Amino acid sequence: MMRTHPAGTLRAEHAGQSVTLSGWVARRRDHGGVIFIDLRDASGSAQVVFREGEMAERAHRLRGEFCVLVTGDVVRRPAGNENPELATGEIEVTATELTMLSESAPLPFPLDEHTEVGEEVRLKYRYLDLRRSGPAAALRLRSEANRIARTVLHDREFVEVETPTLTRSTPEGARDFLVPARLRPGSWYALPQSPQLFKQLLMVAGAERYYQIARCYRDEDFRADRQPEFTQLDIEMSFVEQDDVIELGETIISALWSELADYEIPRPIARLTYADAMARFGSDKPDMRFGVELTDLTEYFADTSFRVFQAAYVGAVVMPGGASQPRKQLDAWQEWAKQRGARGLAYVLVDDDGAVSERGPVVKNLSEVERDGLAKAVGAEPGDAIFFAAGHPSDARELLGAARGEIARRCGLVDENAWSFVWVVDAPMFERVRDDKGNEIGWTAVHHPFTSPNAEWMDRFEEAPDQALAYAYDIVCNGNEIGGGSIRIHRSDVQERVFALLGMDEEEQREKFGFLLDAFQFGPPPHGGIAFGWDRTCMLLSHTDSIRDVIAFPKSGGGFDPLTGAPAPITPEQRKEAGIDAKPSAAPAAASPVADEPPTKS
Amino acid sequence: MMRTHPAGTLRAEHAGQSVTLSGWVARRRDHGGVIFIDLRDASGSAQVVFREGEMAERAHRLRGEFCVLVTGDVVRRPAGNENPELATGEIEVTATELTMLSESAPLPFPLDEHTEVGEEVRLKYRYLDLRRSGPAAALRLRSEANRIARTVLHDREFVEVETPTLTRSTPEGARDFLVPARLRPGSWYALPQSPQLFKQLLMVAGAERYYQIARCYRDEDFRADRQPEFTQLDIEMSFVEQDDVIELGETIISALWSELADYEIPRPIARLTYADAMARFGSDKPDMRFGVELTDLTEYFADTSFRVFQAAYVGAVVMPGGASQPRKQLDAWQEWAKQRGARGLAYVLVDDDGAVSERGPVVKNLSEVERDGLAKAVGAEPGDAIFFAAGHPSDARELLGAARGEIARRCGLVDENAWSFVWVVDAPMFERVRDDKGNEIGWTAVHHPFTSPNAEWMDRFEEAPDQALAYAYDIVCNGNEIGGGSIRIHRSDVQERVFALLGMDEEEQREKFGFLLDAFQFGPPPHGGIAFGWDRTCMLLSHTDSIRDVIAFPKSGGGFDPLTGAPAPITPEQRKEAGIDAKPSAAPAAASPVADEPPTKS
Repeated sequence: MMRTHPAGTLRAEHAGQSVTLSGWVARRRDHGGVIFIDLRDASGSAQVVFREGEMAERAHRLRGEFCVLVTGDVVRRPAGNENPELATGEIEVTATELTMLSESAPLPFPLDEHTEVGEEVRLKYRYLDLRRSGPAAALRLRSEANRIARTVLHDREFVEVETPTLTRSTPEGARDFLVPARLRPGSWYALPQSPQLFKQLLMVAGAERYYQIARCYRDEDFRADRQPEFTQLDIEMSFVEQDDVIELGETIISALWSELADYEIPRPIARLTYADAMARFGSDKPDMRFGVELTDLTEYFADTSFRVFQAAYVGAVVMPGGASQPRKQLDAWQEWAKQRGARGLAYVLVDDDGAVSERGPVVKNLSEVERDGLAKAVGAEPGDAIFFAAGHPSDARELLGAARGEIARRCGLVDENAWSFVWVVDAPMFERVRDDKGNEIGWTAVHHPFTSPNAEWMDRFEEAPDQALAYAYDIVCNGNEIGGGSIRIHRSDVQERVFALLGMDEEEQREKFGFLLDAFQFGPPPHGGIAFGWDRTCMLLSHTDSIRDVIAFPKSGGGFDPLTGAPAPITPEQRKEAGIDAKPSAAPAAASPVADEPPTKS
Repeated sequence: MMRTHPAGTLRAEHAGQSVTLSGWVARRRDHGGVIFIDLRDASGSAQVVFREGEMAERAHRLRGEFCVLVTGDVVRRPAGNENPELATGEIEVTATELTMLSESAPLPFPLDEHTEVGEEVRLKYRYLDLRRSGPAAALRLRSEANRIARTVLHDREFVEVETPTLTRSTPEGARDFLVPARLRPGSWYALPQSPQLFKQLLMVAGAERYYQIARCYRDEDFRADRQPEFTQLDIEMSFVEQDDVIELGETIISALWSELADYEIPRPIARLTYADAMARFGSDKPDMRFGVELTDLTEYFADTSFRVFQAAYVGAVVMPGGASQPRKQLDAWQEWAKQRGARGLAYVLVDDDGAVSERGPVVKNLSEVERDGLAKAVGAEPGDAIFFAAGHPSDARELLGAARGEIARRCGLVDENAWSFVWVVDAPMFERVRDDKGNEIGWTAVHHPFTSPNAEWMDRFEEAPDQALAYAYDIVCNGNEIGGGSIRIHRSDVQERVFALLGMDEEEQREKFGFLLDAFQFGPPPHGGIAFGWDRTCMLLSHTDSIRDVIAFPKSGGGFDPLTGAPAPITPEQRKEAGIDAKPSAAPAAASPVADEPPTKS
């Protein structure tokens, strides 16, 4: 090694030793011929002094981010010159030798923590961005998270198995990325959306306890916080029930938060049914760091003459102090709601005397009785605003749930230092598929089609698909779904019934999932699992704002990599050789790996 | 959990306890109304007895590979009935409850260790194949290998970083797999052949110690033991010299072999220069478990009148006892050589009296002096055969090296229980590229173009590219290259000179590797690394014959997966949506991730 010590490890007890350090010039100061540099390496930094004479003369050439090798003597800093904010602040190194390992051109942006440069530039020069302590720490935290999770799993005798990433395409669920197969011209591999089917096959294979930190791929439109490739901690177990998987999941995240966030998660983590989560918080991933719960007013407005509230569901959420918002701000809420696809956000204000205000367009449609009881019905205080949504229950609750989050942000109700975990359980099996005109044209799986109905619904989910519940569970942290899983179907008859309800005839079932149904012919064990959205989990643990902050080389918008310029055009020769335009010779029969529980729905 | 104990953990001390087991019926025997089954789970198996009466009646329905839940009492087996070959052989479980979790159809092949079924069928039913103890153990060993390597690396403060797999294509080196980018129609991602450039960028980023168990992709013609996707343990370090990386590599493989093969590798592992490896063993990955070294006879035949031996190089290898081979067998050697692209394999036999035999076509071309000294010159004993190769040194040595291996196999010289490790160092930087007619048309990198020349050649490799040596090292185990690496170039001027020697003009350098050259402008540290071919390493550790044995779901020939049927045709809608036939709008400038050291050249 071209060093005797990592710079950041030097302490007062090293005084008197000769050391060799290697790293980068983080800062350079010239005090009348004496040159001081902060020499930074992965361990931290130490102050190096080049006293007058030859050393100082050579050090004059040093600039920021030059890479250097320095030999020198560790000395205690003169009394009063210690820097208590620096781990190495009691000492400095008087340089006796200096080797310039490489020089640096002027930087495209300063490498401090407060850099204001745009993300596109940061990603183009990601190798500089990662020299900053924040981004570097995020990558180190992620590495530690891997280790901690693996330790829990290893202690419980889980086996780490790599599953294929060149696999079979399935024209359903999210879009697959495709890969032309040169040796079978006209045929294509697909990159897996998750290892779902392979991990289930491993259970059939008797592996019993599987895990993998797995790269997954979804060709989605790049909304906000999406990457075309992402990572999940993927787990599957045999001979288990829901509580077994939940217990394991809690153990993993407790270990992560304990070691990396210095927070002991109270256990068992609370559970909320999916129905309650929607009713009380308008979300299947409620942020429990604040209250502001929804109130169901359907009953309250059962006999209303206000047409808008003559709906399958009427609900409300209260904004503390919201009555003092100027008209402009109340109008902005309407815009906000419209951007979410709603027609608007009806509101009523509560005056300081506790009576309903005459302001706003809704109040005049309410009867006197409706006005008088309203504040009490929703728990509003004088000076609050009451927001309403009416219509289809799930749409209206979703709008109120979003309003709830927005209220909490605007009113400063979110304790950014708090951690709040909750399991959302008893998820529904199915939800309606509607066409463009809103007509019900079938069913889709809420989790994925391999999710088991619970015992109550196992034999009769067809009777009321909208009410049937699954053994499915999501773990939610501060309003982010960080993991989700289910007990899986292991009986081929049940799996076939689910496929049928989803509209697949027998031929399609065979074509897409024949190999899974085949596998279930040979003594499949009961099994279930969970997958953690690892990017999001690490994002939360590292207190960063975006999953891009915990990915070494993330893509920017549209899946573009500003660093390498990927994706890029290919040559006609590549195109020809890859067989991209070849006709398939014959369609071999078989089925397909697909959709896992969405680990991070967002 | 649907069990109280893993079946394989039951011992005599459990006698008297009631236990619940879950697993598969491995064997079932009916002894006059009493049913015995071997109940197998991931931990092993235990004997379960269904005594007469209702339990036996229900157990009558059990067949092989039914999945069951059994509750019963652990009892010591009657004296004389113990099975010392089974860890649970002192006890059996008298069943009191039986739940059929799932049934099994008749198996496509028996699940014993001696199954003779073809690989295609095994892979189609891989979920059954993996229930066999051998294949299951291979996957478990691989999981342990991961853990052991990570422990070494974690103890040395390496950071595990995931690098992108949707990246930029480079039309050079091995072929890239391509992925159409729907959001940038006409542009394509490439799957990486290795994380090479990203790990070097991480060094520029100051990560200092990186590792990753990385999935890599090469679209090659599927020879023998190739998979389109494979795994390497990928490592990179800053501020190191060759010996540092070699020491780390030794520590990792020593830990692996100690824990998984119960073998303490003598350290330091011997080193052989590339030149010596070629001269003595005719291979850059010599199998050191046996001797049979090559003899250089160029000098010996310097004045020969035999036209074939008037060559740049003449060498020989001795086959012990080979003189007794019948003519047919000696002819078969000619065929063997022709299949390797040689014209044949000249031989001379040594009679039992130590004189050169008159048999064979070569001997009559040799002078008396040449005949007389030959046996001594090559160290042949009476009854041995001497094989020759003459011509271009590297071609001839390669042929003799292959003959050496073949001799060892045929003569039983390979100790299958032996382990032999060697580092091959001082590899050449470049080798000639020849066109179809054998004309020299340029140079190619022996390792990869990011490999650093050694100190002696750094400033003058252009003077004699065929002689220039690199800081490159391969670790060889029993004739298999299991890892390889190098100190990298970190100076952009040196990198540009290497690119230029390889025939890239400045424009091409910018287009392909602009981002790397850019990164080297900003204080790049000296760095180097290594990558282990993880499939091959695990194959050797698990004493299996093919890397397919240590991959959960491998592809068969031509990259086809008999289980899922991948690759498969795609629909016209998928094709359209993916933008496969779109014209690229404009070519954005940038460069590309490529070629790593081939971790498993074979």
